[in-house]
Formats: sequence, C-alpha cells, structure tokens
Amino acid sequence: MKGSEENGPIGIFDSGVGGLTVAHALHTLLPNEQLVYFGDTAHLPYGDKSRESIVQYSLGIADFLLEQKCKVILIACNSASANAFEEVQTHVGSRAVVMNVIDPVVNHVCVNAGSILDSEGDADRTEVDKVHTIGIIGTKATIDSGTYERKIKETLAELLSDSNEISEVSHPGLNVSSMATPLFVPMIEEGFVFDDISNAIIRSYLSRKEMVGVGSLILGCTHYPIIRNQISRFLNFEVNVLDTARIVALSVQEFLNANKLLATKRSGENLFYISDYTPYFEVIANMFFNENIKLEKRNIWS
Amino acid sequence: MKGSEENGPIGIFDSGVGGLTVAHALHTLLPNEQLVYFGDTAHLPYGDKSRESIVQYSLGIADFLLEQKCKVILIACNSASANAFEEVQTHVGSRAVVMNVIDPVVNHVCVNAGSILDSEGDADRTEVDKVHTIGIIGTKATIDSGTYERKIKETLAELLSDSNEISEVSHPGLNVSSMATPLFVPMIEEGFVFDDISNAIIRSYLSRKEMVGVGSLILGCTHYPIIRNQISRFLNFEVNVLDTARIVALSVQEFLNANKLLATKRSGENLFYISDYTPYFEVIANMFFNENIKLEKRNIWS
Repeated sequence: MKGSEENGPIGIFDSGVGGLTVAHALHTLLPNEQLVYFGDTAHLPYGDKSRESIVQYSLGIADFLLEQKCKVILIACNSASANAFEEVQTHVGSRAVVMNVIDPVVNHVCVNAGSILDSEGDADRTEVDKVHTIGIIGTKATIDSGTYERKIKETLAELLSDSNEISEVSHPGLNVSSMATPLFVPMIEEGFVFDDISNAIIRSYLSRKEMVGVGSLILGCTHYPIIRNQISRFLNFEVNVLDTARIVALSVQEFLNANKLLATKRSGENLFYISDYTPYFEVIANMFFNENIKLEKRNIWS
Repeated sequence: MKGSEENGPIGIFDSGVGGLTVAHALHTLLPNEQLVYFGDTAHLPYGDKSRESIVQYSLGIADFLLEQKCKVILIACNSASANAFEEVQTHVGSRAVVMNVIDPVVNHVCVNAGSILDSEGDADRTEVDKVHTIGIIGTKATIDSGTYERKIKETLAELLSDSNEISEVSHPGLNVSSMATPLFVPMIEEGFVFDDISNAIIRSYLSRKEMVGVGSLILGCTHYPIIRNQISRFLNFEVNVLDTARIVALSVQEFLNANKLLATKRSGENLFYISDYTPYFEVIANMFFNENIKLEKRNIWS
C-alpha cells in the first residue's frame, strides 16, 4: 500500500473546523501520530449542500491528502461520511485506508445493543429500553441520507444472525429515530453555548416528538461534542449521550494497532489547512481543538 | 452599451436565496421587468468567506448574467456589495450597469440626515437624535469590511459641503454603530421566526452596547427583511427600521427611469437559477420571494 508507511500522517478532513473535535480526540489518544487536517472552509457548511457536490469536494480533498502521503484518510464530517464515503474509498483504492465517523459509532451502538439483546431475559427492563431506542441528530445532509439508520439495521442484523441462541424474530432490533438540528452548527460557531439562547434552541429541538423515549443519543455532527454536556444536562442525565469523537478515535487506534500501522516516531508537527482563510476561523479552531493551533490557507480548488 | 437594451432582463445575484427579498420588492414595483436571479448556493453563505473568495465568485456570476444579456446587474447580497462591487463594476465595464444594495440605503439615510441637519435649529431634538445615530447589522463579511460606515461618512460630507448655510464643523455628522449578527441568517433559514427562540436571539444581539441610542437601523443583509417587523416590535417601534429591500427597488426604478431603460414590454418569465440544488432551497425560496417559484440548477463553476 503506497503512502501507508507506519510513520505517514493521518489525514483528517471536514467542511470546516468542526472536525477538529475528532482531531483533538485522536491527538489526545495517539500523541505520537502526525495529523494533517484539511477544512474546506471555501465550501462550508456541507450540511445543506447536495450529495453530488459533497462527493465532488471530498474527492478533491482526498487527492490533496494523498499528496501529503497520509496512511489513513479519516472523513471527520458526518455529511461527507454519509454521502461520499464509498466514493472516496473507491477513488483512493489501495493508496490509503479510508475511514469515516459513522461506522465506529454504529458498531459501538450495535455491539452494546447486541450484548444486551443476547441477555435480555436477565437484563432489567430499563437497560433494555435504553438500548432499544437510539436517537440521532445531525445536519440535513446527514439525516436526509438515512445512513445511520441503514447501517445500524444492517450491523444489528449481522450481529443477531451470528448469535445462536437468539432469533431475529423475537428481537425487533433497535428503534432508531433521527432528526435534523441544523441550527446547532451556526449556534456553536457563534459562541452561543451554555447560555439562555442555546438552552432555548436545545429545548426546541430535543422536545420534538422524534426524541421521545430515546435512551441513547448519537451526536451525528462533529460540532456537537462542544455542547454534549449541555445536552446531557437538558436531558437530566437520563440519556446516554455518546462521546462520538472519542469512539471514533478509539476505532482509529484499534485499526492502526491491529494493522501494525501505529507510528513508531513522530514524523512532524500537526498541520492544519483550510481552503478559505478568515481570522474568525482561527479563533473558533482553537475552541474546537481545545488548544491554540495555526491554520494555513491552502487553496486546492483553483 | 451592449446588452443594455431596455427590454433586457435585470440580473440579480446573491450567495443563496436571501436576495429574493430584494427580487420580490423589484418585482412588486416593476412587474414589467424580467428578472434573472442567480443564487450561489454552492458557496453559500458568503457572510463568513474571505474578501478574495467573494470577489472571485462575484465575477463568475457577473459573467453568467452578462451571457443572459442583462441590462443591469444588481448585487443583492450585502457581503458581495461590501467586498466586490468595484471589482464587478470594473470587470463588467460598459457591458451592463452594476448596482448594489448598499449605496441606495446609504443615500437614503444621508439625504434624510442632511435635510434634518440643514434645519436643525427648527427640528425638535428627538428627531435630530434619531437621525444622528444609525445602527447597522449584517454578516461578519459586511460589518468587517466597514463599507457602510465609510460610505455614510463620505456621502454625508459631500452633502454638507454642498450646503451653503451649514459648515461641517458645527455638525459632527452621524454616529454610526455597526454590529455583526451572523446567527440571524441560519435562524431565519431554519424557520425560527416570530417565536421564543428568535425573540431570544434578537434580544441577545440588539441589547448589546453597540445598539444603545440607535434611532435608525439598517438591515444590512438581504435575509433580514423577513424579521423586520419582529425587530421593530422588540425595539418598541421606537427605532426606524429601514425597509431596505424597498429602498433598493425604488433606487433601481429611479435609475431605469432616468436612463430610459424601463422595459416597454415583458420579454419573458422571471428565471431563478442556483448553483447547487436541494429541495430545501425550493421551500425557503418561496418564503423569501413570498410566492411559489421554480428554482433551476445551473452549475457555472465546473
């Protein structure tokens, strides 16, 4: 596999700076890995773009990350993961490993559900209910694609069919309920967090009928970890709000480890590129990465 | 002037569908004119893009509108009017007349101010105070450019220097106070209008120190006319919230009339193009244009 030497960097991309929450989780877990981040701020946000456009942008960025000799390309944007993962994978071929931010979360949810379903006779009712109803919130592009629902159903069906004791018939599987919450991204980017306005917006969205009875909540957008604690509090800490950035980072770690691709030495500083520069991106990038970083403009589009 | 025949269409462009508020005001005032609208939804929003990118996109759209033989190109986007007007004007040259949404509003404000300043001895104090303090709200790109402040100061200085009776020294001119309110665009696009959430966001922005003492408020973004009444009510109807879409439309009418460019017959249906299509744009386009319209995808970028 060309460019996949163990000390090559991990490429990460997003429509903007939101994917830095995932980059930071990776950096925390794997400080030895060099990260090359690309935020497509010239086209941000992807959340209300068409599937066709998202695919086109994602392939262009994948080419850029291949030039940087990345061993892994992690699509740290739910809209792109939902709409362009297969296309990027086909395009990249054997030149690098392509990962996304949806599959690790789907696997996490289904494995947990599977183990509880397996022991349903023993488990107390509350715990089973929690796993049975999964809520997903994200941008319009992510939710409209139906990717989470489809992958959860497919993965759970596989897990259940692997189980000898349990037949699919006696386990209807998970209830999955998804809802677009598109105002969260600009709200977070404008710094409306942990205040009356963000509480009102969170209440408005999470009080809708789609969220009734949800036991576990997937934050299907890389911006949302910023308000994870606030969402948990609004839900009276009764809902398992998944730490999706960390789940993704753990999955990357596991893959690198299993394939002997963990860096043996740090090959360089983390690099953060964006396709359109304004000073504001610098400010909010620091919020998302949780420490001061330097953004560099790299126009790959003209 | 090539392509500027009186029965050619009026070209209008914006980063998305917000400029349809201006298109609708034009359509209401001049039903005989054919409109060709272009919304650059592939790059929306312009409000947080760099000046360089906004100029590049604007020139590309101007070329498209020239191909449509537009007699006038109206930049119905404040971010593009603030950052790219001169560049578009230079690029278009004598092929069409380029107008923007800032100059008509600046002229309106300054002419009103000038006439009150001229008669200040007679005017009651309240009225003078109102004119003296102009507030401007808009996107980051518009506010950061400082275009409104600069143009208001220049225009008022000209008006005052034309007045024989009044010297500049005895009239410090207008106080101008501007503030970026970037959450308004996604808030409006998400349908959060005339409800608790939009009231909370309006209160948060308009209670800031920049808005203290404002007597007239310029809505420096073509989305904002949608919440003009709500803003007026929050301000207890004590602030003159300018109907910017109508002011711009009146200015286009005046220009066409003075230059004998008013259409003598309708040359075709209004056309509405966007550079990236999702069904959601169709829905909100109807809100902005205030009647059902058909959007057509036209990718001018690849």
